[in-house]
Amino acid sequence: MRELIFEGRILRLELEDGRWEIVRHADAVAVVARDEAGRVLGVWQQRPAVGGRTWELPAGLIDDGESPAQAAARELAEETGLAGTLSPLTRFYASPGFCDELVHLFVADDLRPEHGASPDDGEVVEIEWRDPASTWHEIATGALATSGVTVLGLRHVLAGGVLDGADAQRP
Amino acid sequence: MRELIFEGRILRLELEDGRWEIVRHADAVAVVARDEAGRVLGVWQQRPAVGGRTWELPAGLIDDGESPAQAAARELAEETGLAGTLSPLTRFYASPGFCDELVHLFVADDLRPEHGASPDDGEVVEIEWRDPASTWHEIATGALATSGVTVLGLRHVLAGGVLDGADAQRP
Repeated sequence: MRELIFEGRILRLELEDGRWEIVRHADAVAVVARDEAGRVLGVWQQRPAVGGRTWELPAGLIDDGESPAQAAARELAEETGLAGTLSPLTRFYASPGFCDELVHLFVADDLRPEHGASPDDGEVVEIEWRDPASTWHEIATGALATSGVTVLGLRHVLAGGVLDGADAQRP
Repeated sequence: MRELIFEGRILRLELEDGRWEIVRHADAVAVVARDEAGRVLGVWQQRPAVGGRTWELPAGLIDDGESPAQAAARELAEETGLAGTLSPLTRFYASPGFCDELVHLFVADDLRPEHGASPDDGEVVEIEWRDPASTWHEIATGALATSGVTVLGLRHVLAGGVLDGADAQRP
């Protein structure tokens, strides 16, 4: 038995069996990409929900009718003006205790300019390529705020590279 | 200008400036621990929000007045009956586009039984130690559902161990 509490622009709040507070939210994508110097591509965003700025991997919600890979390519182009060869790395629920948002993480290789890319209406993003080790340290100490998928992407890169990570260690 | 839409047991929904749908949620902790065989400690949970079972690192919400480290020790004991030496690894927002939940990830060493531990009221958890490489593969292919902090913990372990990971690579 599910009761609809609120239906909004990006989420829907339901109460299940009068007890479980559940947020329905679109699934999301994120992209981890490196340059030749080993720096990781991220964007600065103003996040009202956390009351400040974050540096995060290029990311966004999957639109109706899009595949995760299509959404990842679109978000990469919209937020950074780049295109690349995208490979799925992993997927996870952002916070399965209360929310159904599934996040798909992609690795981008062979980056190149995506001509004709334009930011979302109203979206203001500032790109910064950052050193993964110093960024990891800033996040761990609380000096820099970010998302879970960004920390995962950094950890993956710090593990020795985007292509020769744990995904190659399949049993 | 913030409008309160709903106040529940584990979350509060607000509308900011009539536009931003924001979920206020307690901060959380999770613990990554390995046994001598290199397997990672996790618990099976029924998650109504995602409509199924997940295998996740021991985790939970920080209670009022608790530090993150205290909450991590409590959750580890309640969910697994174990105690350990806890070290903070990193922290991140689970989904900063709409929610303020901050997640603190700890590494546990020197695991030992925690006498007197008892599960939360109504909490049913089943422990399973899993091989990190095969678990990573199951998650990546969608065969196993989990949380973002679990994937991060696995990636950290797969990077060569809990203690000699990227946290030692500080510039």
